[in-house]
Amino acid sequence: MRSVSVIGIGQVEVGEHWDKSLRQLGAQALRSALQDAGIDAVEALYVGNMLSGELGAQEHLGPLIAEHAGLRGVEAYRIEAACGSGGAAIRAGVVAVASGIVDLAAVVGVEKMTDRPTPEVTAALANASDADYEAGLGLSFVALNALLMRRYMHEFRVGHDAFAPFVVNAHKNALSNPHAMFRFPVSAADFAQAKMIADPVNLLDSSPVCDGAAAVVLCPSELAAELGGTPVRVLATSIATDTLALHDRVDPLRFQAAADSAARAYRQAGLGPRNIDLFEAHDAFSITSVLSLEACGFAERGHGTELGLDGNIERGGQIPISTMGGLKARGHPVGATGVYQIVEVTQQLRGSAGANQLARARVGMAQSVGGSAATVATTILEGPVAR
Amino acid sequence: MRSVSVIGIGQVEVGEHWDKSLRQLGAQALRSALQDAGIDAVEALYVGNMLSGELGAQEHLGPLIAEHAGLRGVEAYRIEAACGSGGAAIRAGVVAVASGIVDLAAVVGVEKMTDRPTPEVTAALANASDADYEAGLGLSFVALNALLMRRYMHEFRVGHDAFAPFVVNAHKNALSNPHAMFRFPVSAADFAQAKMIADPVNLLDSSPVCDGAAAVVLCPSELAAELGGTPVRVLATSIATDTLALHDRVDPLRFQAAADSAARAYRQAGLGPRNIDLFEAHDAFSITSVLSLEACGFAERGHGTELGLDGNIERGGQIPISTMGGLKARGHPVGATGVYQIVEVTQQLRGSAGANQLARARVGMAQSVGGSAATVATTILEGPVAR
Repeated sequence: MRSVSVIGIGQVEVGEHWDKSLRQLGAQALRSALQDAGIDAVEALYVGNMLSGELGAQEHLGPLIAEHAGLRGVEAYRIEAACGSGGAAIRAGVVAVASGIVDLAAVVGVEKMTDRPTPEVTAALANASDADYEAGLGLSFVALNALLMRRYMHEFRVGHDAFAPFVVNAHKNALSNPHAMFRFPVSAADFAQAKMIADPVNLLDSSPVCDGAAAVVLCPSELAAELGGTPVRVLATSIATDTLALHDRVDPLRFQAAADSAARAYRQAGLGPRNIDLFEAHDAFSITSVLSLEACGFAERGHGTELGLDGNIERGGQIPISTMGGLKARGHPVGATGVYQIVEVTQQLRGSAGANQLARARVGMAQSVGGSAATVATTILEGPVAR
Repeated sequence: MRSVSVIGIGQVEVGEHWDKSLRQLGAQALRSALQDAGIDAVEALYVGNMLSGELGAQEHLGPLIAEHAGLRGVEAYRIEAACGSGGAAIRAGVVAVASGIVDLAAVVGVEKMTDRPTPEVTAALANASDADYEAGLGLSFVALNALLMRRYMHEFRVGHDAFAPFVVNAHKNALSNPHAMFRFPVSAADFAQAKMIADPVNLLDSSPVCDGAAAVVLCPSELAAELGGTPVRVLATSIATDTLALHDRVDPLRFQAAADSAARAYRQAGLGPRNIDLFEAHDAFSITSVLSLEACGFAERGHGTELGLDGNIERGGQIPISTMGGLKARGHPVGATGVYQIVEVTQQLRGSAGANQLARARVGMAQSVGGSAATVATTILEGPVAR
C-alpha cells in the first residue's frame, strides 16, 4: 500500500448558517480545499454526514455535493458512523488512495443541524445510540453522557470542578480561531455556575448544535512531493467499534474502542503517546475528553482530569488538546467534526495555525468518536519537518 | 493492488419481517456468509443501508450489526448512496481488501421498510432525489420514474406493452428462488391490467416495499485459493455519479452514470458487453432496466425494450437479466439490493443457482443504482472455471 498525504484543507466557519443549504456548505469547504491543494478536480469524494436524512429530508449526499462543487460524475458516496462519520470518511479516503485505485481523493464532512427545532435535533442525535435499548427508553445523548460523568465522579472521587480546565482551555483556544463558533472566554467560575442540562452535565460541559463543513484533499505522498506545497503525511488511520449500548460493556468507564483504535494507530505509526505533540480529542462533552485521554494512554484510568491541572492540556503543555477550540468551542456539526479535526491538525503541522500555533508540532493525532464511543476513528499525521 | 475474491455469501428471504429487527436481519445474513466462507471473523465490516435513520430511528449500523453478529470491536461503518448503497458498500469492501490494509472483509446490505406506514416510506424514499428541487415539490420516486417512462415512450414511440417481458421474466425467475418475495407468475395480460400508480408506471412496473439482508465475505484471491471452496473473482468495481435532479441533465433518457460506471468496469476487466453472460440489472422500475441495458451497451439508445422480444433477457437468451427474480420479484429492500445482486451473481458463477442455473455463467455483471441513476455502482465477477 502507498503512503498518503494531505495536500489541501478547507473549512467554513462553524455557526448557524440559516442562509446556506447543506450542499452550499459542503461545496464551499470542498472548493476551498481543492484551491488550497492547487488542483481542479479529484477522482473520488467521500462525504461524512450523520443527520441529513432526519433533519434535511436528503440522503444521497455523494453526488449532491460532488455536482454542486463542480465534480459531476466522480465516484462519490456517504459514510456514516454517527458523530464519528467525519473520522470514518477520512479513513475511507486514506484507504482508497493507499490502495492505488484512487490518486486524488477528497473527503468532506458536512452537517446542518440548526434549521430544525431543538427537540427534533435531540431526537435525531439519539439515533447514534441503541434505538431499542437506549433512545427507545427516553435517554437522550446528553443523558447518556450524564450517566458516564456521574459514574466517573463517583468511582474516582472526582469533583465536577475537576472538568473546568477542559472547558476553559477550549474556549481560550477558540478565541483566535476565525472558524470557531464561540469566540469568547469562559472561566472556571462561569463553568461552576452554568445552567444544568442533565445532572451533572451542564451547558458548558456540552458542545453546541450547529452547522459546518470541512474538507481535505488526499494523494499519494510521492505525488504530493511533486505537487509542492506543504504536504502532511498520514502515518496511521484506524477504526475500532464497541457495543452501541453502554450497559452491554464490561466497564462503561473504559472507552475500549478508543483504546483499540489508538493502539492500532500507534502500531501503524511506530509511535506511542509520548511522541504525540497535539491531540485533537472529541470533546463533545467534558467527560468524553477525559475518557479519550485515558483510552489513548495520555493518563492512567481515573486520572484523566489531572491533565487539566498545571496547564498540561494547554498550548505549550504536555499534551495540548482542542488547540483550535475543539468540539466544545469551535463547534460540533456532528458528521463534519472528524474532518475539522484533520484540517486543524494539518494547520498545526504546517505551521499555519496563526495565533494558535504550537511551538512544537511535528506529530499530531485526532480522534473522532461516534455515539458513546461505539465507533472510534484515530488518525496520526506527521508534519513536513518531522524526523 | 491485490486481486479480490468473494468467498462467502448469505441472504435472508426478502419479505415482510415484522418479527425480526434490523440488527437481527443483518446479523443473520452476515453469519450465514461467514459460515459459507468457513470462517468465524473478519477484520472489517461495510454496511449498506439507506433508510434506517428515517424509518428505524437508528443510525450507526456498523457497530450495531457487527456486535450482534459476534464481531464486537472490528472496523465497521455504514455506506449510503440511496438505493445504490449496497453496490457502494461492495465497492468499499473491495477497495479495502485490494489495498492490502484488510485481509478479510464482509459487506452486508440491510433494510427494514415494512414497519412504518406506506406514506412515511414513500417520503423517506424520496430522500434519494433532490430535496430542494424534486421531493420538495411533491415528486415521489414513482412519479420521477413515471416522467422517465412517459418521455421514453414518447421519444422512441414505444408502447407500454413493450415493457411486459421484463416483468414476466422477473416473476418467472423468482418462482424457483427460495429467497424471493413474489414467487408467483405474472403474464403480459396481468401486466396490461395492473393498477395504475403514477401513469404510465403501474403496480407491476414497480418493485415492492420490503425487508431483507444479504452479505458477502471478501478476501485476496491468493488467500481464497488457500482457503478452498469455490471463490469467485472480482474483475472490476466502479462507481460513477450524476446530478440528483433529472432536470439538470442534458439527456434524462441517458443514464450517464450507468454508462460511465460500466465503461470503467469494462476497462478494468478488459471485457465488453459481449463477454457478459448474465446481468443483474437494477429493475426497480421496468424503465430502469431498459435504460440500464442501453447505458451498459447491451442495446442501442431507444432500442432497450427490443431485448424483451424473443427471450433475449431470459435464461438461455442473449443477455439474461434478473436471473433470481430481480428487484421486481425477488424484492428491493433498497440498501440491501446491491449486495443481493452480488450474492446472486456468485450463485450463478459457482453453479449453485439451483433451478435458476444458467448453462453458461462464466462472467457476470451487477449494477446497483441510487436515485434516478445519480449513483451507479458496477461490479464484474468471474467464476472459477472461466478463461
